[in-house]
Amino acid sequence: MNSKIRIAIAGYGNLGRGVESALDRAPDMELVGVFTRRDPGKLIIQSTGVPVYPLDRVAEFVDAVDVLILCGGSKADLPEQGPQLAALFNTVDSFDTHAKVPEYFAAVDAAAQSGQRVAVISVGWDPGLFSINRLYGEAILPEGATYTFWGKGLSQGHSDAVRRVPGVAGAVQYTIPSPEAIEKVRSGTRPVLETREKHVRECHVVLEAGADANAVREAIVTMPDYFADYDTTVNFITAQELARDHGAMPHGGFVIRSGTTGTDSAQIMEFGLKLGSNPEFTASVLVAYARAAYRLRQQGAVGAMSVLDIAPGLLSPKSAAELRKELL
Amino acid sequence: MNSKIRIAIAGYGNLGRGVESALDRAPDMELVGVFTRRDPGKLIIQSTGVPVYPLDRVAEFVDAVDVLILCGGSKADLPEQGPQLAALFNTVDSFDTHAKVPEYFAAVDAAAQSGQRVAVISVGWDPGLFSINRLYGEAILPEGATYTFWGKGLSQGHSDAVRRVPGVAGAVQYTIPSPEAIEKVRSGTRPVLETREKHVRECHVVLEAGADANAVREAIVTMPDYFADYDTTVNFITAQELARDHGAMPHGGFVIRSGTTGTDSAQIMEFGLKLGSNPEFTASVLVAYARAAYRLRQQGAVGAMSVLDIAPGLLSPKSAAELRKELL
Repeated sequence: MNSKIRIAIAGYGNLGRGVESALDRAPDMELVGVFTRRDPGKLIIQSTGVPVYPLDRVAEFVDAVDVLILCGGSKADLPEQGPQLAALFNTVDSFDTHAKVPEYFAAVDAAAQSGQRVAVISVGWDPGLFSINRLYGEAILPEGATYTFWGKGLSQGHSDAVRRVPGVAGAVQYTIPSPEAIEKVRSGTRPVLETREKHVRECHVVLEAGADANAVREAIVTMPDYFADYDTTVNFITAQELARDHGAMPHGGFVIRSGTTGTDSAQIMEFGLKLGSNPEFTASVLVAYARAAYRLRQQGAVGAMSVLDIAPGLLSPKSAAELRKELL
Repeated sequence: MNSKIRIAIAGYGNLGRGVESALDRAPDMELVGVFTRRDPGKLIIQSTGVPVYPLDRVAEFVDAVDVLILCGGSKADLPEQGPQLAALFNTVDSFDTHAKVPEYFAAVDAAAQSGQRVAVISVGWDPGLFSINRLYGEAILPEGATYTFWGKGLSQGHSDAVRRVPGVAGAVQYTIPSPEAIEKVRSGTRPVLETREKHVRECHVVLEAGADANAVREAIVTMPDYFADYDTTVNFITAQELARDHGAMPHGGFVIRSGTTGTDSAQIMEFGLKLGSNPEFTASVLVAYARAAYRLRQQGAVGAMSVLDIAPGLLSPKSAAELRKELL
C-alpha cells in the first residue's frame, strides 16, 4: 500500500532534525525531501536516501509533497516563508511570537486560501499544547484564573545576554518555575503573580582568564529587562563542565487553571511538560499536526488554522472507531 | 439580543444540579427547562422561574430547546434515553461505561442521523478530558507508555460494598493514587503497573453498636474483586465524623505519557485534576460541550461524536480570532 503521507522539511536546524527523527516513529508518513538555504551538497542529514534540495526550487515539488513542515525561526524566516509556502503547500509551522499571531495568521490565511491549501500555524507546546490547555481551563471553569509557568528550561535569549557581559567566556541560563509560586497556585488560593514572581533565573558562567567574578555577577543580576526584576543565581563553572553538563536542551512548564464551581467547590486543572529535548518535542508535535493538516485538506478544508481549531482525533493514525474503543 | 443557546436538563440529580449551576456562569446560554421522571410538582430546583416538566412530555419541546443535556446514569438511564432523545434533540451525555462505548455510540449515532441532530457522548473527565490527554500523549510521543491514575476520590461502588458488610452502619471509600507509583512514572522509568499497584484504598467506617471491629476490617480487606488485591486501610469513625468530614464528592487523577524522542530524550506529558466536587466538574465539562454541539449543528454536522472529534475552540464563547489573540 503506497499511501503514506509525503512530508518534506523546509529548514534543517535542531527543529528540522527533530522532525526527521519523529517521522521515523510515524508508520503512516514518509520523508520525501529536505529543503535548505545552505548548499544542499554540503548538508549531511541523518536519513539515508532522502534527497536534499535548495529551498528556492521548492515550487517544483508541489505535486510530490503532501505537507511541508516549516522548521525556520519565527523572527526572520517564518514571516516571509510562511505566507509564501502556504500558497503552494499544505504547511505546519511553529511560529511563536505571541504578539504577532493575528498579523501572521492573516498573511498565511490569505496565501493558503489563494492556493487552496491548509496551513496550521503556531504548533508546538507554547504556543500549542499550552494554548489548548489555557482554552480548556477557561471554557470549562469560567470562574477562575489561569497560570502559565515555564521551565526548567534553557533560554536562548537570556543565555546570549549573559555571554555579552565583559569577562564571560561562555554561559547558559535556565528559567525555573518558583516552587513557592507553584505551591500557592496548586493550593487554589489564586494569588496575583507577575511573571518575575513565578520564575527564578539560574546562570552557569565560564569566566575569561583574569575576569573578576564579583563584577560579572553584579553585571548579570542588575541587567535591566533580563535579570534585574528576577531572583537570579550565578554559578561559575569550568569550560569542561559547561560542555559536559549543559549541552542538552531541556524545557517544560505548567498551565494551571484554578476555578470554582457551584457555591464554593475548588477545582484545579493542570497540564505539565518535562522535556528532555525542547526541539525534539516541538518537532513531534509538528509531525502529529502535519497528519491533521493532510486529513483536513482531504476533507475539503482550506485556509490557516491553529491547534485550537483542530479536533484531537485528527492527530492520531488510528480511526475514530479505534480511538473510541481504545482511548475514550 | 435574544440569541442565547437554549439548554434543557434531563434528569435532576447531583449532575443535573451541577449543570444548572454551571449554566449560571455561561453568558451565552440559558436554562429553559428541567425534565424529570419524578413528580414535577414536587421537584425543588435551584433556579427561580425555570419550568419543570415530566420527562415523558419532552417531545413537545423539540423546537424550544437547542441542546438537551442528559444527566441520567450510565447503567440504567442512558442506554435507553441516549438513543431516544438523540433522535429528537442535540444532546450531550456523560456515558462512562468504557467497555460499552462502541455499542452505545452506534445506537446514538443511528438515532441522531435519523433525526438530523448532533449527539456528543461520553463527556466529562474520564471518559472525556483524560481520553483527550491519552490521545495527545500517544499521537505526539508514539514511543512510550500511558498511565492513568484515579483519585483521591470517593468511589460509590466500593463505598456501597463496604456498607453491605455485617456490622457496618455507614462508610465511605476513597481510591488514592499510590505516591510511589506516581513517582516511578514521573521519573520516566516506564514501569509495568497493574491498576492495583497504582492505587490504594482507604475506608472510613462507622460500626453498628456491638460490632467487632477486627471482624469488620478483615471482611473488608479480604473482599474479592473490591479489596483483596489492593493495599487497603480501614479507619473507624463516628457517625458525626462521617457526616461532618465525608459529605463532599472530591475526585481527580492524572494521565501521564512517558515517551522517548530522538535517540534517547526522555519526554513527560502530564495532565491532572484535583476536584472539590466531581459532579460539578463533570457538569461544567458537559456545559462547554453543549456549546460545541450547538455550533457543530449550526455548521451542518449530524450524528454521534465524542470529545475526541471536537476542536478545542468550539468549547469557548470567544471567537476563533479572539482565542488566537488571547490564548494562543
